[in-house]
Amino acid sequence: MQSLRAGMAPRAAARGVMASSSRRPFTAGVPLRAAAQKPFYEGEPDGPVIKTKIPGPQSTKDIKELSEVFETRSLSLLADYTKSFGNYIADTDGNQLLDVYAQIASIPVGYNNPALAKAAASPEMVRALINRPALGNFPSHDWAEILKTGILKVAPKGLPHVFTALAGSDANELAYKAAFMHRRQQERGGYDVDFTAQELESVMNNQSPGSSQLSILSFKTSFHGRLFGSLSTTRSKPIHKLDIPAFDWPQATFPHLKYPLDKHAAENEKAEQASLEEVEHLIKTWHLPPAALIVEPIQSEGGDNHASPAFFRGLRALTKKHNVLMIVDEVQTGVGATGRFWAHEHWGLEDPPDMVTFSKKAQTAGYYYRDASLQPNRPYRQFNTWMGDPARALLFRAIIDEVHRLDLVANTAQVGGYLYEQLEALAGRYPDLIQNLRGKGQGTFIAFDSPKRDEFLARAKTEGINIGGSGATAVRLRPMLILREMHVDILINALDKVARVL
Amino acid sequence: MQSLRAGMAPRAAARGVMASSSRRPFTAGVPLRAAAQKPFYEGEPDGPVIKTKIPGPQSTKDIKELSEVFETRSLSLLADYTKSFGNYIADTDGNQLLDVYAQIASIPVGYNNPALAKAAASPEMVRALINRPALGNFPSHDWAEILKTGILKVAPKGLPHVFTALAGSDANELAYKAAFMHRRQQERGGYDVDFTAQELESVMNNQSPGSSQLSILSFKTSFHGRLFGSLSTTRSKPIHKLDIPAFDWPQATFPHLKYPLDKHAAENEKAEQASLEEVEHLIKTWHLPPAALIVEPIQSEGGDNHASPAFFRGLRALTKKHNVLMIVDEVQTGVGATGRFWAHEHWGLEDPPDMVTFSKKAQTAGYYYRDASLQPNRPYRQFNTWMGDPARALLFRAIIDEVHRLDLVANTAQVGGYLYEQLEALAGRYPDLIQNLRGKGQGTFIAFDSPKRDEFLARAKTEGINIGGSGATAVRLRPMLILREMHVDILINALDKVARVL
Repeated sequence: MQSLRAGMAPRAAARGVMASSSRRPFTAGVPLRAAAQKPFYEGEPDGPVIKTKIPGPQSTKDIKELSEVFETRSLSLLADYTKSFGNYIADTDGNQLLDVYAQIASIPVGYNNPALAKAAASPEMVRALINRPALGNFPSHDWAEILKTGILKVAPKGLPHVFTALAGSDANELAYKAAFMHRRQQERGGYDVDFTAQELESVMNNQSPGSSQLSILSFKTSFHGRLFGSLSTTRSKPIHKLDIPAFDWPQATFPHLKYPLDKHAAENEKAEQASLEEVEHLIKTWHLPPAALIVEPIQSEGGDNHASPAFFRGLRALTKKHNVLMIVDEVQTGVGATGRFWAHEHWGLEDPPDMVTFSKKAQTAGYYYRDASLQPNRPYRQFNTWMGDPARALLFRAIIDEVHRLDLVANTAQVGGYLYEQLEALAGRYPDLIQNLRGKGQGTFIAFDSPKRDEFLARAKTEGINIGGSGATAVRLRPMLILREMHVDILINALDKVARVL
Repeated sequence: MQSLRAGMAPRAAARGVMASSSRRPFTAGVPLRAAAQKPFYEGEPDGPVIKTKIPGPQSTKDIKELSEVFETRSLSLLADYTKSFGNYIADTDGNQLLDVYAQIASIPVGYNNPALAKAAASPEMVRALINRPALGNFPSHDWAEILKTGILKVAPKGLPHVFTALAGSDANELAYKAAFMHRRQQERGGYDVDFTAQELESVMNNQSPGSSQLSILSFKTSFHGRLFGSLSTTRSKPIHKLDIPAFDWPQATFPHLKYPLDKHAAENEKAEQASLEEVEHLIKTWHLPPAALIVEPIQSEGGDNHASPAFFRGLRALTKKHNVLMIVDEVQTGVGATGRFWAHEHWGLEDPPDMVTFSKKAQTAGYYYRDASLQPNRPYRQFNTWMGDPARALLFRAIIDEVHRLDLVANTAQVGGYLYEQLEALAGRYPDLIQNLRGKGQGTFIAFDSPKRDEFLARAKTEGINIGGSGATAVRLRPMLILREMHVDILINALDKVARVL
């Protein structure tokens, strides 16, 4: 898939911006390849349609009704999924917004995707829905086949096994449990060494040695979920954590890099080196020794914080040196958004991570792992009633097929490059409003900071763009994998209008 | 729905047993009402079909293949859900077993239920599957309607609100989070009092006062899930807990009652009184004060331990007296199995519990709650990406419709009475093998202890019965709500054959 724009330098795009004052994209005059000018699926609106303020009269009425039975204080848009299609989300007032937030980064191939609709209506899906098995006890005879043609078909290199889960939080917690059991079994002297009477007794009182005095090391400004174990590793915002009891687990500083990365290479390297030293110090000294370290390839909820491949290779080396497992949390970065199927493929690791967790765009969840040594030494140690969901595994399989059929990871890499160029040009035009643009070479996983972030997000909606924030000041782009250059043009024009009035 | 058998005394049934030595049920000669003699859905086998040992040759081959990519050490039966129907689970070797375990108590209306198949193939379901929303931000315009005609239609009395979740473990943890936030906000001086700077800072280090120094009080031999918070309240077996860090939360002794309950009323009351005193002592003295107490109406995984309505009324009184929230975990007992839609309806509470959690047979999950004071005082405090699953909510709605259409809660109450009688008769015949029969008046939520429990379960399979265990020695019956007297007869005959050879 070659793009006519592939060789275009950011500077050229920037000139385009400065010259432009119409509704045409900044790149007007530079022809896009033909494929970039039509959506992957026919039937999308030509552009956003804004008929009312949001929420409009019908939505206002419906939101009031919903608020009587469900939490609506965080509601952003009451959607009409019967009318949403492709990259566009609709409401009941006739508005259609280009959606570059995509249900908090969890819609991969568009609303009402025809291929997914077909998979969802299949007899196989119906059976999976209405005969939900306890997978640990009564898996279906075709479960191996479903795994091999789906979840395991896209297993990260070196991680051929999977333990399935329901969502990102529990995927991470199950990975933590695997890490704790692995470490304690090592300490016991091997896979086959049995528990002591003291362990069996103390654990029922939540005391050591049966309950381990170990920890999971995570990073400041990270997000790994909101259940009790995962929340203890989440360090995004106080509002996520307040009042909830937490384990006294260690956190290392995530390197605070300056953007664009290539212009601040020396100081960024220093920040990364300092972070690695802090990680090693914590591993060696924390009163509850870390059984594992968990890290996001790009800190997402925490504000789209990047680090270099060298940093992650450093983490891999440190964790191996100190016998700490390395868990990569790809819940938000996985499934194509960074222009690779898994974001950690950007790192060029020689040794793969020990575990990689996934959810969101996969529509199912779980952790991939290296080998049988990461399986508990007894059955029923890692177990729960459903242990995943075959219906959602079938859906992920259909998503994978569609991603491969349309080469959507390559598309995202390419469109992401174009999107970055256009945003760079826009930032050049509004340097006070669009700062720290980041995500170059990371597909469409792009963000920038804005001192007027919340107004920016609100105004974007009035221009027909559904977009999200992260951290304290970041605007984050989390479009679907079916975003094309034509959508980028629409997006950039809308953001230009937003910026003009802010 | 009147039963010809309703007035039959257990003694008569017992005589039936003693007189019987054929394959006919012990009740032979006492005619069942006509409806009890045919299944709710046509198409079930007339009885179990056992063609091979289990696993048979085809299953053995398939299990080997599955074991290369998935945990199979806890596998009980590799099922063929294309051939399973109603109360019968099939495998690929042509075996058909009467399933009174039902995916660890989570199949309500039978395999390949036609009404559920219809709901699962509907355009509404397809849309829900392929357009999965972040419910807190972008709920569907018909989400209120789906809740009102489904999950909320069966809300326990006095608990008109719901927060939706994905499974029992996270439902419990979300309820715990609500309890912690509620208690801390009270301590702060009210719903609108803001957090202090010290709280906002300390919580990011997992330290108090931002991270609360509170606890959840649970009972010994309880089971509330296996994530880090829920596992800290689970006290079922060491194998569920070993090596996983746990919060230092308190546990009270669950009364160990003697069965049958009515024959040991005085000493059982004493045990319950002692338990209540221990609960009060822990509430008053535990170093991390309990924000909530969680209790199962019948301790399920922990061995089917019962307590009286008076005990639960005592718990309600104690928790109210000491400002501790009462969470009732109905993950296994809910949705009809005890002959009431919710098991806690048996208690005759004047004040409802503060929260009731559910999952399993509901195929979705969440917690019902009393009023807005249990909602966090700020948005995004109780939040996650999916916050439940509309597809599964639609399925629960279809289940509820089917339960109501066929009056399956009443059916379960009635069939449960018959089942208990028959088991009592069987226990009379094999007093060394079938002990502590329990669950009288609790629908089909029936169990007994057996010193040869594991052999009992294994042999039952060879007789065409899929049945589960719980605790150390219990055989637990967790059939579907579509169990009829005819199935009870098949079950009892098979168990009689098992007992004869053990």
